[in-house]
Amino acid sequence: MDPDLLRSAVAWRDGRLEIVDQTLLPERFVVRALRHLDEVVDALVRLAVRGAPAIGVTGAFGVVVGLEETGPPRPGPDGLAAARSELERVAATLAGARPTAVNLGWAVRRVAAAAGRAADAAELRRLALAEAEAILAEDRAACAAMAEAGRAELAARTRVLTHCNTGRLATAGLGTALGVVYAKAAAGEPVQVLASETRPLLQGARLTAWELVTAGIPVTVVADTAAGAAMAGGLVDAVLVGCDRVAANGDTANKIGTYSLAVLARANAIPFYVVGPLSSFDPAAADGAAVEIEQRPPDEVACVAGSRLTPAAAGVWNPAFDVTPAELVTAFITDAGVLRPPFAASIAAALVSR
Amino acid sequence: MDPDLLRSAVAWRDGRLEIVDQTLLPERFVVRALRHLDEVVDALVRLAVRGAPAIGVTGAFGVVVGLEETGPPRPGPDGLAAARSELERVAATLAGARPTAVNLGWAVRRVAAAAGRAADAAELRRLALAEAEAILAEDRAACAAMAEAGRAELAARTRVLTHCNTGRLATAGLGTALGVVYAKAAAGEPVQVLASETRPLLQGARLTAWELVTAGIPVTVVADTAAGAAMAGGLVDAVLVGCDRVAANGDTANKIGTYSLAVLARANAIPFYVVGPLSSFDPAAADGAAVEIEQRPPDEVACVAGSRLTPAAAGVWNPAFDVTPAELVTAFITDAGVLRPPFAASIAAALVSR
Repeated sequence: MDPDLLRSAVAWRDGRLEIVDQTLLPERFVVRALRHLDEVVDALVRLAVRGAPAIGVTGAFGVVVGLEETGPPRPGPDGLAAARSELERVAATLAGARPTAVNLGWAVRRVAAAAGRAADAAELRRLALAEAEAILAEDRAACAAMAEAGRAELAARTRVLTHCNTGRLATAGLGTALGVVYAKAAAGEPVQVLASETRPLLQGARLTAWELVTAGIPVTVVADTAAGAAMAGGLVDAVLVGCDRVAANGDTANKIGTYSLAVLARANAIPFYVVGPLSSFDPAAADGAAVEIEQRPPDEVACVAGSRLTPAAAGVWNPAFDVTPAELVTAFITDAGVLRPPFAASIAAALVSR
Repeated sequence: MDPDLLRSAVAWRDGRLEIVDQTLLPERFVVRALRHLDEVVDALVRLAVRGAPAIGVTGAFGVVVGLEETGPPRPGPDGLAAARSELERVAATLAGARPTAVNLGWAVRRVAAAAGRAADAAELRRLALAEAEAILAEDRAACAAMAEAGRAELAARTRVLTHCNTGRLATAGLGTALGVVYAKAAAGEPVQVLASETRPLLQGARLTAWELVTAGIPVTVVADTAAGAAMAGGLVDAVLVGCDRVAANGDTANKIGTYSLAVLARANAIPFYVVGPLSSFDPAAADGAAVEIEQRPPDEVACVAGSRLTPAAAGVWNPAFDVTPAELVTAFITDAGVLRPPFAASIAAALVSR
């Protein structure tokens, strides 16, 4: 297998920011080097990069790319002042590319804060690069930790149902929920995946299926309507999903359709795992009611592959996420290990010890 | 409103068999007259007509169309023998157009049996037409009876979630589950519909949305992934679905995704109604395990609107139907009234009194 085909959504290679252009998958696998700030912004806006961790890493290195194209750093206080001004402009431009992506603003601010402590313009660039590299390394390490914790937890379960895309294309590493699948495969354990297609944007059918086919792991795609029948028919040993935001009590906001899978898993006595790093846990949100649900454009539902399927006069309700109540979650698989009920206590303890 | 826009999937008008070509909806509304047997077969094969009752009515009149194009009936025993032979050929051709469609074979056999009792070739044609007209009239009457029974049952519930298409485009009348919606609207009662898009073939997004927009009834389309969030969010007062086959104990085979909606309705304390005529109840099937589930071609899932979305190397599992256990059904709304638990008893009583 070509190891290049197994690369993650985003990488920093030989001083270049590279991404897999996900808008072309699964038809074509194209790696793009992003050499200019406007190319980074364009990749974020076009969703050529998606997945919260991958967006964050891209934004972090986007600061480095943006600073480099302003010419060589100048010495002295004037050079530092100019570099700080450029840093501010670059950070604001990147953060504005996808205003609702929490990880993007977080990563860009983190790089800008680290760089802002420099004593001169050259150090500012070095610190920005070092912080971006730290963010990427932390993401990879978190993926590896989750993957191993999940592998151990799911030792006896081989048939995994998952939703959306939570793998290499969503992170700078192995992924979250799909990382567990990769860890099982790497350990030589039998594993096969049922991927729900994940309407409206079909990340399961397009991206998860592509990742697993490329990795040589058996994958079967089902329409979202067939996930319940698969569970009732005894085809699923465990459900694994990612998370966009977990509240203090364990209520979990994730891709629309996650809640339905959780209810169906419970009805069929199948364990339901949420996989995500502690950075996705938000102790400021007491429960799911505190999580605002983004509404997405109607045409994501009304049109598929460029064709309008629904009459223009019909309404469309298109929430990006839903909230799965904590009581439907069997356990959280995190970079700090497996968190079990009661979740308010186990989540608080994990966050405090971090 | 143009009354022509409200016509059902199939009709017999001025001695002609007419259908709405559903392959063109919602972009274009085209009524086709089917004047030759091969046109009827083609319409059935291309799914220009779909929905079990509509397929049955089309097949019934297809016998009439097929007999008429064999020239004028000849008198005497030789004419009758020739007409019987033609009847047999026409019936076999029609029944073979969609071998798995139970209603098609049933309707064609019923017309052929009635016509077979004729004393001469001219009477054979008259009897065939009379039986086809009876089948159409019975379908319309069953739709009207279900619609009124459902309207009374749902008097206090205005926000209906439905699945697939169960309306005028699926029958020769008002429809089954959607007929209840039409009856509420016709009675001046407030009603609005949440239509799940119903992957893979999107009958909800394409056909149900079109029907309701055309009828001036408020309709909002959701991806199948969003149906659970809609229920949990308090947007649904009742779930109404049709049925392909109901077993003696009330287990219900219907469009894939129905089971998931039933589980989600139960989890959210929302009543879940199955609407269908007694002709869809099969006392020979003791329970859902006796219902064979048709597997459909992978490309229905892997391709949408002509575009391949899933890598060809990925597997696809594409069952046409699922089985909803009887205990998840609040009641059956039938042409013999509302059947309530315990269903084994209420179904048996309704079938006996028929």
